[in-house]
Amino acid sequence: MSATPTSDPAIEVPRGLKGVIAADTALGDVRGREGFYHYRQYSAVELAEHRSLDEVWHLFVEGDLPSAEQLRAFRARVAAVRAEPLPPVVLDALPLIARAGAAGPLDGLRSAVSLLAAAEGFAPVIDLDRETIVAQGMRVVAAMPALAAGLWRAGQGLDVLAPDPSLDWPTDYLRMIGGATPKPEHARAVERYLIATIDHGFNASTFTARVIASTGADVGAAIVGAIGALSGPLHGGAPSRALDTLDAIGSPDRVDEWVRPRVEAGEKMMGFGHAVYRTQDPRSELMHRTAAELGGDLVDFAEVVERRVVEILAELKPGRELYANVEFYAGVVMELAGLPREMFTPTFATSRAIGWAAHVVEQVEDGKIIRPSARYVGPPAPAPLP
Amino acid sequence: MSATPTSDPAIEVPRGLKGVIAADTALGDVRGREGFYHYRQYSAVELAEHRSLDEVWHLFVEGDLPSAEQLRAFRARVAAVRAEPLPPVVLDALPLIARAGAAGPLDGLRSAVSLLAAAEGFAPVIDLDRETIVAQGMRVVAAMPALAAGLWRAGQGLDVLAPDPSLDWPTDYLRMIGGATPKPEHARAVERYLIATIDHGFNASTFTARVIASTGADVGAAIVGAIGALSGPLHGGAPSRALDTLDAIGSPDRVDEWVRPRVEAGEKMMGFGHAVYRTQDPRSELMHRTAAELGGDLVDFAEVVERRVVEILAELKPGRELYANVEFYAGVVMELAGLPREMFTPTFATSRAIGWAAHVVEQVEDGKIIRPSARYVGPPAPAPLP
Repeated sequence: MSATPTSDPAIEVPRGLKGVIAADTALGDVRGREGFYHYRQYSAVELAEHRSLDEVWHLFVEGDLPSAEQLRAFRARVAAVRAEPLPPVVLDALPLIARAGAAGPLDGLRSAVSLLAAAEGFAPVIDLDRETIVAQGMRVVAAMPALAAGLWRAGQGLDVLAPDPSLDWPTDYLRMIGGATPKPEHARAVERYLIATIDHGFNASTFTARVIASTGADVGAAIVGAIGALSGPLHGGAPSRALDTLDAIGSPDRVDEWVRPRVEAGEKMMGFGHAVYRTQDPRSELMHRTAAELGGDLVDFAEVVERRVVEILAELKPGRELYANVEFYAGVVMELAGLPREMFTPTFATSRAIGWAAHVVEQVEDGKIIRPSARYVGPPAPAPLP
Repeated sequence: MSATPTSDPAIEVPRGLKGVIAADTALGDVRGREGFYHYRQYSAVELAEHRSLDEVWHLFVEGDLPSAEQLRAFRARVAAVRAEPLPPVVLDALPLIARAGAAGPLDGLRSAVSLLAAAEGFAPVIDLDRETIVAQGMRVVAAMPALAAGLWRAGQGLDVLAPDPSLDWPTDYLRMIGGATPKPEHARAVERYLIATIDHGFNASTFTARVIASTGADVGAAIVGAIGALSGPLHGGAPSRALDTLDAIGSPDRVDEWVRPRVEAGEKMMGFGHAVYRTQDPRSELMHRTAAELGGDLVDFAEVVERRVVEILAELKPGRELYANVEFYAGVVMELAGLPREMFTPTFATSRAIGWAAHVVEQVEDGKIIRPSARYVGPPAPAPLP
């Protein structure tokens, strides 16, 4: 690869911008070597175990955990936003979007959120004050569970259910999918997953949301772009794949014969390894505990598979420190909670949207467009036209 | 701003990644200090003046300008792709998307392309070979003029016109909007604009497309995200704004009284100044020549405004080297060619999509996820839950 000199200065950094500081954030951080991540200074795992989704949403929107009074006010606000009907044109479009089909689980949500943002008339963020941007973010976040559930039901030929803001978000989400009020322990398990996946450093979808917001584009454009990035298999957000692996293995005695040849052939093991963590993924441990509380054969099987895969990976890829990632037990938790497998990734998108929306607000306050350079490596220019 | 140390290494670079090399490309380069940009070594301005859009599209898709025989084959391929009907579900959705309305000119196109990609069942690029990714990019690029024109006509309550692949792209595009075959000089003027705006270094939308593609997501996700970034006012792609400025000024004798107080108040002059060029924007000069060939009062007026604004900017902002950018005369050209003003930005998106699609192919070949870091600047963690 020969670099042709250009007249403009260029700063060399590692490929893929690895380790490059693209922005400041007060929203949270991931310490990959410590196996620790936090939201605005609070351990995300502790938040997931001890707080409600509304409280943590408040932390992202308002900057701190709410007092009892603040929580009442925030819940009233959230209930009002969740009760706001979807624009008629969006409701009319859901069956069409579902009918369009998709190659990936987020295609429908991408179109639906895009249409919602247009129907709401979101102006470019550069023309808006902070409060309006926050409100638009909350509108999208509050609508996404209804959109995701509605698309799924429309795709199944079922009636689309309106939100019931008297129920908490996770309970209502499971109800809008399954049609019946879920068991409290299932809603609580999903709530933990949702809290634990709101934010996680500068993953590619969060970065995408910030790049788009940095151009001054509207909140919808930023979140639609982020949904697109989240749909990328290298983003790592596909909890159903790990479960598919469990299905493919089938039984505890078949782990070695299934895993070993694949690892030897250089295949990735879905649900294992992470770009940042060099230790146990704290989300995996949280989801493992949550799955264990729900109990059952699937959990026992998953534990056997996890133990053997980690051992085989340690043997065949020494020094790589590959552990179960969030996908692995998150898939088990969602399966036990009764979520259809096609809904695992959209469910991830609904919680991550809280993080995206907060990053959009932060990026607008930063105010600087994110616009790196490329290095031209083609033949020297100018050449005369042939 | 106090940086809390994290356990992971961090590389400090200028804000907004300015000057940071985020990728290699053989597609083209911008030399801001020379006022020069090129596509695969050929001056983009020369290409716009002497070649057809199909030839330049071939340059982006196949890597070189076509021979006469290659051009015949490519045109046959393009005609076939353009003749391919839009999926019925997309046609059904166009009136809905148009009815949703929008705060920005690209909101509808964003939804329509998202739905098209889903209806076509585009799989993640990571699972596809190069040829399929190229074909999917061509499908989106070929459909975008029909989608943009169809959305506009649906929004006007007019019937949506099917493409006529026997006409060249620019001619057919103007026909699908206006309903009648345009004058050849109008089509040729728009063709020059389209060729000149296919690619322009690592602008924010191109970068967005590459970030999304780098996750392995589908071609639709990348282009939808890029449309979102293009809609950002800081991206600089809004040729109608410069024309709105001409309208607001109204007559040649009012230039000073309109421009001077606004520049003194720190307002940006739409159509002037560019992030990269420190000299005449070569696209502006091309569009100026093109507008002058079409002729008329609007061109004369624009020339007066350009001259005076550059003089006033030089006087009030010495050393900033602010010149007319591509927006300024591009708006004039599109107005003279009879494009409705709401279609200026979507028209920009239709040509830039050729560039996005080629960058997606290049990014997939690179294969490395683009995932920078953020610096946590909030209060020290972990803190105990209150």
